[in-house]
Amino acid sequence: MTDIQPQKIYDVVVVGGGPAGLMASLCLTTYGFNILHIDERAHPTTAGRADGIQPRTIEVLRNIGGVSTAPVPGGPIPRQSPLGGGGVAKKMISQGVRVYEVAFWDPTATEKLARTSRAPSCPDFVDVVDNYTLLLHQGLIEHAFLDEIEARRAMLPDALPTPPSGIFRPYMLRDCRTLPANASDALSGTHPVECVIEHADSKVKHTIRSRYLLGCDGAKSHVRRCIAGGQVGDGEWQGAITMQGEATDIIWGVLDARVKTNFPDIKYKCLIHSKSEGSIMIIPREANLVRFYVQLQTSEDGKVVSIARDQATQDICIARAKKIFEPFELEFGYVDWFSVYQIGQRIASQYTLDHRIILGGDATHTHSPQAGQGMNISMLDMYSLAWKLNLVMKGLGKPEVLLPSYEHERRGVAEELLKFDGAYSRLFSGRGVDAKHLPGGVDAEKFIQMFKQNAFFTSGCGAIYFANALNALPGAPVLGGAHARAFNPPGVKLVAGQRLTPGRVTRVVDGNQVRLQQEVKMNGAFRIHVFAGDLRATKRALDGFAAFVDSPASFFNRHRPNVGVSASIVDGPRATTNHTDSAKNVHLHNPFFTFLTVVGTHWYEWEIDDLPSPLRLYRSQVYGDALFDRRVPEAGTSAPVHHKFGVNLEKGAIVVVRPDSYVGAVVGLSEDGWLGLNDYFAGFLEVPEQKTLKARI
Amino acid sequence: MTDIQPQKIYDVVVVGGGPAGLMASLCLTTYGFNILHIDERAHPTTAGRADGIQPRTIEVLRNIGGVSTAPVPGGPIPRQSPLGGGGVAKKMISQGVRVYEVAFWDPTATEKLARTSRAPSCPDFVDVVDNYTLLLHQGLIEHAFLDEIEARRAMLPDALPTPPSGIFRPYMLRDCRTLPANASDALSGTHPVECVIEHADSKVKHTIRSRYLLGCDGAKSHVRRCIAGGQVGDGEWQGAITMQGEATDIIWGVLDARVKTNFPDIKYKCLIHSKSEGSIMIIPREANLVRFYVQLQTSEDGKVVSIARDQATQDICIARAKKIFEPFELEFGYVDWFSVYQIGQRIASQYTLDHRIILGGDATHTHSPQAGQGMNISMLDMYSLAWKLNLVMKGLGKPEVLLPSYEHERRGVAEELLKFDGAYSRLFSGRGVDAKHLPGGVDAEKFIQMFKQNAFFTSGCGAIYFANALNALPGAPVLGGAHARAFNPPGVKLVAGQRLTPGRVTRVVDGNQVRLQQEVKMNGAFRIHVFAGDLRATKRALDGFAAFVDSPASFFNRHRPNVGVSASIVDGPRATTNHTDSAKNVHLHNPFFTFLTVVGTHWYEWEIDDLPSPLRLYRSQVYGDALFDRRVPEAGTSAPVHHKFGVNLEKGAIVVVRPDSYVGAVVGLSEDGWLGLNDYFAGFLEVPEQKTLKARI
Repeated sequence: MTDIQPQKIYDVVVVGGGPAGLMASLCLTTYGFNILHIDERAHPTTAGRADGIQPRTIEVLRNIGGVSTAPVPGGPIPRQSPLGGGGVAKKMISQGVRVYEVAFWDPTATEKLARTSRAPSCPDFVDVVDNYTLLLHQGLIEHAFLDEIEARRAMLPDALPTPPSGIFRPYMLRDCRTLPANASDALSGTHPVECVIEHADSKVKHTIRSRYLLGCDGAKSHVRRCIAGGQVGDGEWQGAITMQGEATDIIWGVLDARVKTNFPDIKYKCLIHSKSEGSIMIIPREANLVRFYVQLQTSEDGKVVSIARDQATQDICIARAKKIFEPFELEFGYVDWFSVYQIGQRIASQYTLDHRIILGGDATHTHSPQAGQGMNISMLDMYSLAWKLNLVMKGLGKPEVLLPSYEHERRGVAEELLKFDGAYSRLFSGRGVDAKHLPGGVDAEKFIQMFKQNAFFTSGCGAIYFANALNALPGAPVLGGAHARAFNPPGVKLVAGQRLTPGRVTRVVDGNQVRLQQEVKMNGAFRIHVFAGDLRATKRALDGFAAFVDSPASFFNRHRPNVGVSASIVDGPRATTNHTDSAKNVHLHNPFFTFLTVVGTHWYEWEIDDLPSPLRLYRSQVYGDALFDRRVPEAGTSAPVHHKFGVNLEKGAIVVVRPDSYVGAVVGLSEDGWLGLNDYFAGFLEVPEQKTLKARI
Repeated sequence: MTDIQPQKIYDVVVVGGGPAGLMASLCLTTYGFNILHIDERAHPTTAGRADGIQPRTIEVLRNIGGVSTAPVPGGPIPRQSPLGGGGVAKKMISQGVRVYEVAFWDPTATEKLARTSRAPSCPDFVDVVDNYTLLLHQGLIEHAFLDEIEARRAMLPDALPTPPSGIFRPYMLRDCRTLPANASDALSGTHPVECVIEHADSKVKHTIRSRYLLGCDGAKSHVRRCIAGGQVGDGEWQGAITMQGEATDIIWGVLDARVKTNFPDIKYKCLIHSKSEGSIMIIPREANLVRFYVQLQTSEDGKVVSIARDQATQDICIARAKKIFEPFELEFGYVDWFSVYQIGQRIASQYTLDHRIILGGDATHTHSPQAGQGMNISMLDMYSLAWKLNLVMKGLGKPEVLLPSYEHERRGVAEELLKFDGAYSRLFSGRGVDAKHLPGGVDAEKFIQMFKQNAFFTSGCGAIYFANALNALPGAPVLGGAHARAFNPPGVKLVAGQRLTPGRVTRVVDGNQVRLQQEVKMNGAFRIHVFAGDLRATKRALDGFAAFVDSPASFFNRHRPNVGVSASIVDGPRATTNHTDSAKNVHLHNPFFTFLTVVGTHWYEWEIDDLPSPLRLYRSQVYGDALFDRRVPEAGTSAPVHHKFGVNLEKGAIVVVRPDSYVGAVVGLSEDGWLGLNDYFAGFLEVPEQKTLKARI
């Protein structure tokens, strides 16, 4: 109904308006880019589909934050904390329900169906603030993203016009390709990607140029078909990119419904195996709905066979569910959504052919929905890609290092998921390779054991990245360099390639008790955490590090974007805005780095102004470490976060956290350490030629 | 601009659209009443005024909750959890800033101004979840209330039309009185209050009848003048109600501004005493504002004198502030608000003359703003009155007991506040009676000591009510009864007349980790907490209590409203809605009582259905007690909440929490205990004649 038409040139085209595409759009808008976002559906999801958000995803969404909506007197939105508002995480949390515990129900010697085990959804050993799975239907999730994208687009200095929803719909991708460099095509150097999109109703076509195109258009991705060429083979379009893996004949139905039942655990996630009727998983949902995953099988000549996909109706699904639930009563009321799927696992042979048109989400990996992982890993694909594109597009990142790292890191996670999902979904369907039961039966003990063993991974917190230029682990290039010995100091428990774990600290500038992890919201910057330990012991090293940062040779001064280029629309703290000191200490701001100083000495015993510049100029990111943490009770209120992270109070440490809140490098607070960091950053950042280098706050 | 006119008859008229009036309107709307709410201002507050929300007030606002805004598929808003949304508390928290720590600055032997002490705003011994003061300007607070009132009014089955803002403005109260019962006036029995209101611009008058009228119209209350008669005397209108207390000649200026300064604690609450220039209090505020309270004094002939009120300009205030801040730099930018006030403390001799027209908030008590108490105590006045009016208007409460208890309880709190404020504000202004310093100097040590000693009270958590029919303490009528010995069992740390303190438990129906305190949102019901201890030891007593509740003689069955009368628009859980069991266990629902059962035995070892009916019918309010609490580390995960509350695991206890989350009575889990509860409730609840008594769920 809108008459807003797509423009001819964008920074990035995003194809697909599901969770992966929305995450891409939200992150890239935050980084200040103009996005053409299209979706072939006329409206966002209204019911059903994906619904489980795992702890690590909630942590990420919290870190993306929310644009503040508080009315601000006397001026524009203050630069300092535009991300203080509720944002996507809080909106979803207020709308969803939580699963803390999973119950396992199986036939026993005496009962047709009994609870045989329980397990926390997110075991206590996983150190994460939101220790539950959040459940709400995909439409609510999409709307939370759409609202936040719209609020952020309003902050872009030169936003191109978009429809009110933010997404051009219904638009089909008709073609896309990367053009060769061509002197007569002025855009080919900067915007080599060309795509043709078509309005689904009016059939009007548009040809668009962009720097990148992201294919987030699902398992049957049009983008993948365009770049892969080829034709249908083995159930999927095959060509330059093949979908590797296999499908099974196992058919499941899924429905969202309101029910009445005397089954006591109807508000838990339950994994239910009947003796011979198949399995069910239930998950509680918002608005008193229950999601049912129902195995659709029947007996033929004494053998268990799957119901054919084209015969799997809602009524059959409900009938199977009642059968599996016996002897419990189960009455179905309102049904919100129904669908059927086939168990299988596939992964794309490549995520991209040229690092210009890049796939992610279901376009690169498909699997069964039961483990509640798909939407999470898809969103995090794009969260992981976006900050790398940001560095590259701003001229600061080395494309040949950063762009391949996307597939390197995310494909590793997808492969681990597929391995787990393949075994898990077959075992849950009674097809475990070494099932010791009758055909159709389930090895309950083995299944429960597998569930518990994989909880760290399924929480999302166990998605670990391996050594590469970004993760300074043994095997990474920088560990072969001159300052290798400064990396990964003994005792420190923060590990490159893993997320920064939580810790509560006191923000000295205002005495607020805060979560260190969430202090810097996603703004494209590397977060340099200086754990200063005991100031009496570390003062000299701290001064040395500060002097180094200020020197022209430091990563901070070498990897500096061109004048006027920011890391995001929400640059985050630099020097304080209301301290007269800031006028005297003119400091060359670099929006791609920010410093957080955590001091072990009690914060009553020193002042922010005692710290060396530039650390003290990041006034709102100086912290005391004196809040009790139940995971290190032995530390009491004496530097518990230092203890938890294994940082020696006499020595201190520097921890680089990447813009996606993964630890990138850990070094000692020593000359070797900061020289090592220089090597680390030189591995993937450019040294741009500075056109103008003058004082900016 | 609206053409919606006031109707002729309402349940309650609320005069005044500030925080007290808004709280009255929000609570009474929640209880299902039609309110005429008027304010003489044309718009809500736009800047300045009150800004500090204390921990206990945040706890109350959280308990009021928020009407869920989640789209609900396939039907109306579910009855079960309409209060799941963000609500006023979360909206305010996302907009405000927090004060955790207070700094004291004084002249010392060596420095003109130095930090001499610090103190937590809310000391750790105060067991409260939000352990900080929340700061935001009164307009943001008012808007949060207005939005929530509007959302709830939409849920009233027979809402009268109101302007979009919910408040009729600008309307002046011209007269109000309570009419005598009169056979020819059909309304005099039910709606004896008559008031005349006038539109401030059109001068159109309306005469309104209501059951009650609440005067929340501030220090110069028109309502108070109307009912008190009399004339101005001693600076206040005096008559049948006098304002008792006195003013001083101490003048303070208050302004909200953006500043640049090298004063390190500009984002703390600071209490600053200069040597001879007077005192300042600063408080950080949203949007990078700072509130300054500046003592306005000068020297005349070597003597310190206050600046005359009519000469106290913004410029003078800024000049004084800079002087007091010396030697620190202080540059003022944008000024959002400026005002002047005079230190004084007054309290109304009576809050009401007839329990029909009732005063609260600033209409009953005024004092200095520095302690950040005024808005809090005013809001809580109305929070405290509303549930009593609800019981009375629904025919269940004894007006002669419940209505006087409002003044009894709230006046006690106001008197304690005035006592504290009088000493505190004079001491802060250098007028401590036994100041050992020069005139104009401040006894810093004594002041800091007073601040720390009163932190429990100023957090709002120390607002304690004394023995009366509602608070079963020694001296209360019920403690003179036959079952007196069952009350206040030894060891139990929950005390009648004090708030229920926090405790985290596991909700068994869905395994969620929740705060017990916040499980039942404000819905007009008494919350009967059954601490069941060790089920092996208490099973017999638990069965006895359940059988008693089900018997016709129990408080639950005696104090039952008439058919069709609910306690609020959000009745809260009764029997579960999705359990087939609920159809079989027909139970006479009484919306004024709800049961929460907390079991000490690990919840893996029993089922909800093992509990006796009716306790097990409140399925969503059955809890396991196995979550670590740092305040009782010795309990580990073995019934920590029982330990914290001092409940003997072998004996159990029953704790009645009033609708305002104050503990009303604590009894043993024994026959004496529940018979004692019967006496307790009979003290203030009616036994209505049941017109129809039939099964209702």
